[in-house]
Amino acid sequence: MGNPIIDYISQFIELTEDEAGIINKQNLFRQYRKNEVLLAEGSYAKDCYFIIKGCVRAYYIKDGEERNTDFFFENQTIRPVSYQTKQPSEYYLSCLEECVIAIGDEARNQKLVEQIPKLSALILKMSEELILQKQLEFDHFKNNNPEERYINLLETRPELLNRIPLYHLASYLGITQVSLSRIRGRILNS
Amino acid sequence: MGNPIIDYISQFIELTEDEAGIINKQNLFRQYRKNEVLLAEGSYAKDCYFIIKGCVRAYYIKDGEERNTDFFFENQTIRPVSYQTKQPSEYYLSCLEECVIAIGDEARNQKLVEQIPKLSALILKMSEELILQKQLEFDHFKNNNPEERYINLLETRPELLNRIPLYHLASYLGITQVSLSRIRGRILNS
Repeated sequence: MGNPIIDYISQFIELTEDEAGIINKQNLFRQYRKNEVLLAEGSYAKDCYFIIKGCVRAYYIKDGEERNTDFFFENQTIRPVSYQTKQPSEYYLSCLEECVIAIGDEARNQKLVEQIPKLSALILKMSEELILQKQLEFDHFKNNNPEERYINLLETRPELLNRIPLYHLASYLGITQVSLSRIRGRILNS
Repeated sequence: MGNPIIDYISQFIELTEDEAGIINKQNLFRQYRKNEVLLAEGSYAKDCYFIIKGCVRAYYIKDGEERNTDFFFENQTIRPVSYQTKQPSEYYLSCLEECVIAIGDEARNQKLVEQIPKLSALILKMSEELILQKQLEFDHFKNNNPEERYINLLETRPELLNRIPLYHLASYLGITQVSLSRIRGRILNS
């Protein structure tokens, strides 16, 4: 089996054998069980994550209730707010499925970019994509009602609907599970 | 008067005289009147913007109504979605006040980074800050009711409350102006 991180990077930039070797030598991968917590509220994020396999859920706990804010799948990067701010995390990250995740702490990430400088262009490109996606999601959330949000997910992120339990999806859409069932019923019957 | 772009960049990285000279030679600045539209729905964004003075409003028109999604102030960069995707813009950008704005099209931006490579580290840093801010704003919007959203703005972006007319602010918060007045009344009386 190849190294999935090298496969991913090679879609965007060409790596020399030496550069691929540098990445291969890193012992980056970890396996996580379903429901294992990667990051807890109040703790300090020391790592960034790149999902090789599985799904990670981001959620806040407010008034004793979990409120889902994001789901991450294969080939997505998670860079916790706490990693950047050095403040305790306000939210949780936990594995919604069994996961294989590549881990990078700050020292390792910096060293990798020093050894392979052209990675920084890729990181910038990925950052710009992420800003774009976040902005579109936010604009869409604000400009639409829950039914429109659900239809938009159907169109833009169908994998989310197949892999996320309905009660988690309802929380992500900002509605109750009963409302989500009604919306799904209307769409099926229309 | 100095060049405000050089002043801004110099907060983060040290520019040599030659590098400052390169930036100074660009004829970047434009003045805009209040309510002048920088980018219209359906048009293609050719430029990025960096606000020297003034305030820019981002809004969608849905069901004949303007829906505000963002406000940008001094020292903020606006990189329209359409600039990145090369698709027609889905939203408008217009000047809420008289503005002085630095303009950069793609060719000029690329050339500048080629001439001053260390700018790319600054751009990455700014991108990461922007992702962070967008994520926090989005999480906050989803996890809070309109009154909590308003209180959060009071605490985190007071300049927004001073410079944005109430009817624009209400649209940004996703409520009617009447609801916003009630919220403000409750807070003043508490």
